[in-house]
Amino acid sequence: MTLIEAVETHDVRFPTSLTLDGSDAMNKDGDYSAAYVVVRTDDPGLAGYGFTFTIGRGNDLVTAAALQWAVKLIGRDLDTVLGDLGGLYRELQSDSQLRWLGPEKGVVHIALAAVMNAVWDLAARAAGKPLWRLLADMTPEQLVDAADLRYLSDALTRDEALAILRDKADTRADRIAELEARGGYPCYTTSAGWLGYSDDKLRRLLQEAVDSGYRHVKLKVGADLEEDRRRLRIAREVIGPDAKLMIDANQVWDVPEAIEWVKALAEFEPHWIEEPTSPDDVLGHAAVRRAVAPIGVATGEHGMNRVLFKQMLQAEAIDYLQLDSARLAGVNEIIAVYLLAAKFGVPVCPHAGGVGLCELVQHLSVFDYVAVSASLEDRVTEYVDHLHEHFTDPCVVENGNYVLPSKPGYSAEMHTASIEEFAYPEGAHWKQRASAK
Amino acid sequence: MTLIEAVETHDVRFPTSLTLDGSDAMNKDGDYSAAYVVVRTDDPGLAGYGFTFTIGRGNDLVTAAALQWAVKLIGRDLDTVLGDLGGLYRELQSDSQLRWLGPEKGVVHIALAAVMNAVWDLAARAAGKPLWRLLADMTPEQLVDAADLRYLSDALTRDEALAILRDKADTRADRIAELEARGGYPCYTTSAGWLGYSDDKLRRLLQEAVDSGYRHVKLKVGADLEEDRRRLRIAREVIGPDAKLMIDANQVWDVPEAIEWVKALAEFEPHWIEEPTSPDDVLGHAAVRRAVAPIGVATGEHGMNRVLFKQMLQAEAIDYLQLDSARLAGVNEIIAVYLLAAKFGVPVCPHAGGVGLCELVQHLSVFDYVAVSASLEDRVTEYVDHLHEHFTDPCVVENGNYVLPSKPGYSAEMHTASIEEFAYPEGAHWKQRASAK
Repeated sequence: MTLIEAVETHDVRFPTSLTLDGSDAMNKDGDYSAAYVVVRTDDPGLAGYGFTFTIGRGNDLVTAAALQWAVKLIGRDLDTVLGDLGGLYRELQSDSQLRWLGPEKGVVHIALAAVMNAVWDLAARAAGKPLWRLLADMTPEQLVDAADLRYLSDALTRDEALAILRDKADTRADRIAELEARGGYPCYTTSAGWLGYSDDKLRRLLQEAVDSGYRHVKLKVGADLEEDRRRLRIAREVIGPDAKLMIDANQVWDVPEAIEWVKALAEFEPHWIEEPTSPDDVLGHAAVRRAVAPIGVATGEHGMNRVLFKQMLQAEAIDYLQLDSARLAGVNEIIAVYLLAAKFGVPVCPHAGGVGLCELVQHLSVFDYVAVSASLEDRVTEYVDHLHEHFTDPCVVENGNYVLPSKPGYSAEMHTASIEEFAYPEGAHWKQRASAK
Repeated sequence: MTLIEAVETHDVRFPTSLTLDGSDAMNKDGDYSAAYVVVRTDDPGLAGYGFTFTIGRGNDLVTAAALQWAVKLIGRDLDTVLGDLGGLYRELQSDSQLRWLGPEKGVVHIALAAVMNAVWDLAARAAGKPLWRLLADMTPEQLVDAADLRYLSDALTRDEALAILRDKADTRADRIAELEARGGYPCYTTSAGWLGYSDDKLRRLLQEAVDSGYRHVKLKVGADLEEDRRRLRIAREVIGPDAKLMIDANQVWDVPEAIEWVKALAEFEPHWIEEPTSPDDVLGHAAVRRAVAPIGVATGEHGMNRVLFKQMLQAEAIDYLQLDSARLAGVNEIIAVYLLAAKFGVPVCPHAGGVGLCELVQHLSVFDYVAVSASLEDRVTEYVDHLHEHFTDPCVVENGNYVLPSKPGYSAEMHTASIEEFAYPEGAHWKQRASAK
């Protein structure tokens, strides 16, 4: 019998604001950060690693919240926990005092994501499988039992969820083989498009993206219309008329302004406009979508929970659903959102970047193709070439594809040396900066 | 020149779970708590007090978040701060790193509420006026400048907001006089209706409510249909057929279950069903409303921000808007929600109870009547007779009315002795309980 013996949390912050990596119209100077959780067992060779993502200040709040969720795991029998991950998730969510602080949103919710990500990593490691394969080996009943379907039954019943999964169950192996044969799951790059970069750097990075096989690139917009036009013109020059050019406003506009601004960029034929307004505004996204078609509307990196996504789908507000692996409360809630998207026929193109999000979403996208949507049409997963060196099993991208992960787990473990250097405020990097001031 | 010299925060928790005060179908054992903020100036006679409300665990997270917002005030010139409270609010909200943790929802948002509540309390004290009168003395332009209208312009433009306020500006004094003459602003009581109370206690408390002049009472429902029917039958026996009987499910149902359950209670003629499902579910509330009419739908105590309320109004999802004075980010966001409600013609019936919420909402309701809606029709503000003894200027309720507050401030200051006894975990009460274990 293996017991969960201890949990640890770490506030880890990378100084990305120094180089303006990640700069956009709303978030000008983020320090990409992780509220990092380790779930240790009494087997020294078996632990689970997980995190959620923030952009700096307040990462301590999320780390503290994660500890409040995680301590509930201590002393539990591992087999019991792993035998009912849906039950564990529901038990944690039923803490009404912590629930009050959201409910199911904000700091407590992303902290629960960190904890459940660590638990799912532990489950995959215990099974000796990468997470995507652990999920692909679960029956439709097991997946639905793990999924958080609360508040969804007006849009997706349990029986409908089962039917979606059963329909694809017999052909899962074919799609795994197909992904392996085609070199992985398709991705696009945002590495070129940050607002803080010069035109020369933009041009060079876009050319590198094209040369690396990407057929989709994304640029940040929304700070200044004339600058946006200049940068989009450069982008079209470099990538040509056929590659997909996505634009991302990071929530800076009200609805009428979003419509006007996007129409003013229509000549560059954007594939989608991402986060045109408040991420909470279902009806606003629906209004933008009606007004800017055929430009698609995409949102989700700040999509707070499954209830928001349910409504985005019910209201026909989005063309692309960009769930975030560290903002939704772990695989339990993510399975539910994939099932909702499949029911409504909307492609899921997960948000990634930040720190470690690429490592997570590669598993989720493979799972979606293998077990849920069985489609690659209009599907492309974000990739940003930052900070992968801090992970023990970093994602591998080749020719515009995420290569299928092969090591056991959810690829969420960081190098101990990275944690020691970037732990905030006691890590070597931050101590040195404090003393330099 | 007066400076803001220091800020303090306190994690204060009252052991309400011991008596099941506040028990409902979702929240069975809350310890009513405040993340309490004091903003001190270099004038020893002038400080501001504010808080947000939680139900126990995690109040430390909110208190820590409030400190992260509040430290930004230290060293500022008081007149500059109080001369542009809209500017201060927008400056705080523009901290993109903290914003990421919501955005504008959950722990960071309610922590900002605590801080802005303290700042508004300070503004009212500096002016020597109760908060409602400070607001009633502001011009339409000043109120709109203070309001947070971001993301609202598809539903309410700045010009429309100004027009609503200008239309009522000349007659504000008449309505103040009218409220004073009628004995205050009408309220209803939830003190009787908690799930944890016995039938005898329920009957006695309902009779006391009727005897005290209340024409509206509210009962918690949603744990067990047969029990709900028995308790509603008792309620109708005591209050008679004409008094309004509200029911509150505290989010326990999915949408189809909500519709079925409420219909099964229709014979008791509920005035409204409150929180039938997830507080985030705009389209779900709209569906419930269409199905259970003429029973009204009410929600808002977990309404996370103005964007949610905008959509509730746009989707015709609610009959009564129950904003919460400590979940919205202070008066700045609350003014915006009142203006939205006025535009759409929906009455605001604020949530109260908890600890200190009654003290706050009395000011807001008076402001609404005097300056925004100019109507009492279908308007009634919650009142719960708990924990008022901890405040230096507790609300006064007589004959079913909140008597207009007269002391300077937002009635948010707690007695020092209360903070010392119930500070968590170091206060006398909690230390004693820890040592008794």
